Amino acid sequence: MTTPATFQMTAQQIAEIVKGHLDGDGTRAIRGAATLTDASEQDISFFHNPKYIDQLAGTKAQVLLIPEKMNGALPSLPGKTYIKVAHPQFAFAQILMLLDKGRVHHPQGIHPRAVIDPSAKIGAGTAVGANAVIERDAVIGDNSIIYAGVYVGERTHIGSNCLVYPNVILREDTHIGNRVIIGPGAILGSDGYGFATIQGKHLKIPQIGRVAIADDVEIGANVTIDRATTGETRVGSGTKIDNLVHIAHNVEIGKDCLIVAFVGISGSTKIGNRVTLAGQVGMVGHITVGDGAVVAAQSGLMNDVNPGELMFGSPARPHKEAMKIQALLGKLPEMYDTLKTLKKKFLPEN
Amino acid sequence: MTTPATFQMTAQQIAEIVKGHLDGDGTRAIRGAATLTDASEQDISFFHNPKYIDQLAGTKAQVLLIPEKMNGALPSLPGKTYIKVAHPQFAFAQILMLLDKGRVHHPQGIHPRAVIDPSAKIGAGTAVGANAVIERDAVIGDNSIIYAGVYVGERTHIGSNCLVYPNVILREDTHIGNRVIIGPGAILGSDGYGFATIQGKHLKIPQIGRVAIADDVEIGANVTIDRATTGETRVGSGTKIDNLVHIAHNVEIGKDCLIVAFVGISGSTKIGNRVTLAGQVGMVGHITVGDGAVVAAQSGLMNDVNPGELMFGSPARPHKEAMKIQALLGKLPEMYDTLKTLKKKFLPEN
Amino acid sequence: MTTPATFQMTAQQIAEIVKGHLDGDGTRAIRGAATLTDASEQDISFFHNPKYIDQLAGTKAQVLLIPEKMNGALPSLPGKTYIKVAHPQFAFAQILMLLDKGRVHHPQGIHPRAVIDPSAKIGAGTAVGANAVIERDAVIGDNSIIYAGVYVGERTHIGSNCLVYPNVILREDTHIGNRVIIGPGAILGSDGYGFATIQGKHLKIPQIGRVAIADDVEIGANVTIDRATTGETRVGSGTKIDNLVHIAHNVEIGKDCLIVAFVGISGSTKIGNRVTLAGQVGMVGHITVGDGAVVAAQSGLMNDVNPGELMFGSPARPHKEAMKIQALLGKLPEMYDTLKTLKKKFLPEN
Repeated sequence: MTTPATFQMTAQQIAEIVKGHLDGDGTRAIRGAATLTDASEQDISFFHNPKYIDQLAGTKAQVLLIPEKMNGALPSLPGKTYIKVAHPQFAFAQILMLLDKGRVHHPQGIHPRAVIDPSAKIGAGTAVGANAVIERDAVIGDNSIIYAGVYVGERTHIGSNCLVYPNVILREDTHIGNRVIIGPGAILGSDGYGFATIQGKHLKIPQIGRVAIADDVEIGANVTIDRATTGETRVGSGTKIDNLVHIAHNVEIGKDCLIVAFVGISGSTKIGNRVTLAGQVGMVGHITVGDGAVVAAQSGLMNDVNPGELMFGSPARPHKEAMKIQALLGKLPEMYDTLKTLKKKFLPEN
Repeated sequence: MTTPATFQMTAQQIAEIVKGHLDGDGTRAIRGAATLTDASEQDISFFHNPKYIDQLAGTKAQVLLIPEKMNGALPSLPGKTYIKVAHPQFAFAQILMLLDKGRVHHPQGIHPRAVIDPSAKIGAGTAVGANAVIERDAVIGDNSIIYAGVYVGERTHIGSNCLVYPNVILREDTHIGNRVIIGPGAILGSDGYGFATIQGKHLKIPQIGRVAIADDVEIGANVTIDRATTGETRVGSGTKIDNLVHIAHNVEIGKDCLIVAFVGISGSTKIGNRVTLAGQVGMVGHITVGDGAVVAAQSGLMNDVNPGELMFGSPARPHKEAMKIQALLGKLPEMYDTLKTLKKKFLPEN
Repeated sequence: MTTPATFQMTAQQIAEIVKGHLDGDGTRAIRGAATLTDASEQDISFFHNPKYIDQLAGTKAQVLLIPEKMNGALPSLPGKTYIKVAHPQFAFAQILMLLDKGRVHHPQGIHPRAVIDPSAKIGAGTAVGANAVIERDAVIGDNSIIYAGVYVGERTHIGSNCLVYPNVILREDTHIGNRVIIGPGAILGSDGYGFATIQGKHLKIPQIGRVAIADDVEIGANVTIDRATTGETRVGSGTKIDNLVHIAHNVEIGKDCLIVAFVGISGSTKIGNRVTLAGQVGMVGHITVGDGAVVAAQSGLMNDVNPGELMFGSPARPHKEAMKIQALLGKLPEMYDTLKTLKKKFLPEN
C-alpha cells in the first residue's frame, strides 16, 4: 500500500473520528488500512459481511471496524481491538480519507503551459494543469482541479470543488455541477449517433443539444456521454458511473444510480432514481426504467422496466422467471431424452 | 437547447429551404428546433413515426415537419402549421444544420502551441489546435479541422474537409479520406492483437500494416481501430461508427454500414455493404457478413452470415428462429411440468 | 503494405535467420511480407493451418514458410520455394520484425515541449515526447519511449525498454515493469469503483492503493485498469491485454494470460496463469479463475472456475454442457410440438 510514512493514530483516536464504540486496547498504533487478507499488524481493517468470517479469523490486523449489530457471533479472537460502528465500510472509508490526505499533489494554480482563452472565467482556488485547453467563454467555479491535458470547450461550465482527471474532454456547452469527479479520458458532449437514412445513405443529423451533469456525480475513465440532438442528455445528482460506459444522446438518468462498466444506454431512454445497471447491460432506445430497478449483468433490455423490478437475461425477463429458465436449461438434455422415449412409445408413426 | 439567440426564420422560409409544401400560417416565427416533447412554441419539430402520435397531439410546437404521405390520419390540431416533406427527419436535420452554423468556433489557423514537424504538409484553410502533434511526412488536405491534443503519426494522410476532435490519435501510416469525422479520443492504427504462442509464451507479431478509412465515414468517441498485421484494416465510404467500438487488425468493412456502440469485430472478418451491427454485437475472426445483413443487439456471430439475413442471439441464429426459441423459453416451466406428469403416468420406472 | 522501399533479402538469407530448411530456389528476392491472399510475387508468406490450404494454392507469394511436420500433403505448387520451420507464424513474425526496423521514428531524447518535474528521474536513452507530463518523483528506466501527450503521475515507476504510446495516463504510484507496451489512450491507476451506500446515497471510498504491471505485459488502446482500494491491482508477466478491456480494483491476473477486447473483470477477482478470456467476457467480483482456464466469447462468470476448464454462456456453464444446451435449443420447437401432441392425446383434461 501507498500509505504516507508519517501517518500514525491510536485505535482510541480512530474510534473518536468514526464515532464508534471501542472494545479492547485503545493505545494500539495504526499506520495504515487494508482489507482483512492484505492487512499487516499495523493496519486497521473492517468486517461487514458474514461471508468473510474466515478472513476475519485469519487477519493480521489487530484493530477492526465491526458492525454494532452483528449477524451471528464473532469468532473468538483474543487480543483484537474492535471499534463498533453502524457502517463499518463507511467508517473504513473515513480512515482512507485521512490516509489519502496529502498523498497526492493535485495541480495547483494555473500552469504556465495551460492554454486559456482570455474570455474564460476561472474561479478562486481553481487549478489548471499543463497543456489543458480552456476555450472561449468557458466558466469554472471555485476550488476545482483541472488536470493536465483536459479540454474544456466553448461555453462549458464546470462547478466548484470538481476534480477533472487528465485528458478528459468536455465539448462545447457541457454543464457540470459541483463536487463532480470525472475520470481520465472520459468524453462528454461528443456528437450523438443520429442519421437520417435516405436511399441507403446515412445523412448526419447535427447534434446541437448538450450534456448536463448534476452535483456529486462520479464518472469513470474513458466513459462517453453524447450531447443531445436538441435539448439535453442528463445525469442526475449522486449517480456513479464506472469506466467505459456509453450514454447516448438525449438519455436521462436519475439520481443516485449505479452504472457499472460497459453499460450501453441507447438514445432517449429514461432511467429513474436509485437504479442499478450491472456490467455490460445494454438497452434499446426510447424505453423507461423505473425507480429502484436492478438489471443483472449482461442483460439486454428491450422494453420498459417497472419500478423496483429485478431483470436478467438477453433479452431480459423478470429475474425469478429468468433464473427458473436457467435452471430448466440445465435439465433440457434430460427433458429431450424423456420426450424421445415417450415419442418412441406412443407416437411411433412420427 | 443551445440555439444561437440570433436565429429567426418564418415557417414559409423554412418550407422553401426544405422544399416542402406549406399548410397553415407561413408567417409564424421559428427560433429553434426540438423534439415533440421538448419543443416550446417557438421551436419547429418533426413527426415521422406513428408510434409518436401522442407526442404529436401534446406538443407545444406550432410548426411541424410531417410526411407527404401519412400512414393514417393526423389528429385534429387546430392552428398548427404543417410543412409536408418526403423525409421529415432529414428536413429537420437541414434546419439543425442552419442552427448549428456559427454555434461553435472550431480552431482556426495553426495554433502557436501546435507541434508540427517541418516535413509535414498542411493544406490551405486547415486548422491545427493547441498541443496537437503532427509528425514527419504527415499530410493533411484542405479545410480540415484538427482539434487540440490530436496526434498525427508519421506519414499519416488526412483528406480535405475532415473534422478531427480533441485527443484523437492517428498512428503512423494511417490513411483518412475526405469529409471524415473522428470523435474525441478515438484511436486509429494501434497495434493489432497478434501473438505467436510458443511453449505457453505469447510472442508479439509486429503489426506493420495500416488503417485506411474511406470518404464520409464518421467514427465515434473512444473507438479503437487496429492497424493490420500486414496490408490494411479498412472502413468503406459512408459507414458510421458509434462510440467505443473495437475493430481488430485486417478487418474489412464495406460502405454505408451502421456499427453501434460496443461492437467488437475480431481479426480478418469481412463485413459487406449496408450492414447494421447493433449495440454490443461481437463476432469471431475470419468470417464474412453479407451485404445488407442486420445483427441484433448483444448477438455473437461465430459463422458467416448471408446477405440480407437478420441474426439474433449468442451464439446468433436467424432472427425468426431465435425469436421462436425465446418465446418457447418462456414456456419451458410449463413444458417441464407437462413432461413430469406424462413421465409419472407412463414411465413410472424412470 | 508499408514496407520500407529499401528492404531486400534472398530466400536463402531468410532461411538462415529463421533457422529453417530451404527447399527450392534460394536466390529469390524478398521485398516484403504478407498473408497468403494479400501477397505479391515479391512478398514472403506463411502457411500453418490446413484450414487455409485453398489460400496456399492460390497465393502469388513465391517463398513460403511452412511447418516442418505437415498435417497432410501440400498441394503441388511447382516453382515455389519453401522454408520449413517448427513455427511458421513465429518465423513470419521474425521477418516482420526486420521489416519493422526503421519503419517508425519513435521520439528521441527529451522533447523541449515535454513538461518534466525536476525531481523526476529519466533513465539513459529514454525518450519523452512533446507535451508529455512527468510529475514529481516519477522514475523511468533506461531506453524507454514515452510518446507525446503521455501523463506520468507522482511516484509512478516505469521500467526499462518500455513503449508507452500517445495519451496514455499512468496515475500516481503506478508501477510498470520492463519491456511493457502500453497502447494509446490506456488508463492505469484510475479510481476503483467503490462506494459505501448509506440510506440510498453512495459515499465514495477513497482508492489509495495502486496498479502494478509485471514485465513483458502488453496493454491495448483505451484499456482501463483501476487502482486498488488498498493494496494492489496486479497484472502478471507476459499477459497480453487487447483494446477496451476493463480491469477493476484489486483484481489479480496471473502470467501469460490472453484477455480479449471488451472483457470486464470485477473487483477483487483472481485470474490464474495462462488463462484465456475471449471477447466481451464479463465476470463478477471476488471469484477465482484457475490456471489454464478458457472462457468463450460473451460468457458471464458468476462462480469460480476450475483450472483448465472451458466455459461458455451467460451465465457460463462448462463448455460441453453449454454446447449441448445450444443444440437442444434448436430442437425446442420440435420438442414443443411433440409435447403438444402427447398432451392432447393423453392429458386432454389439461
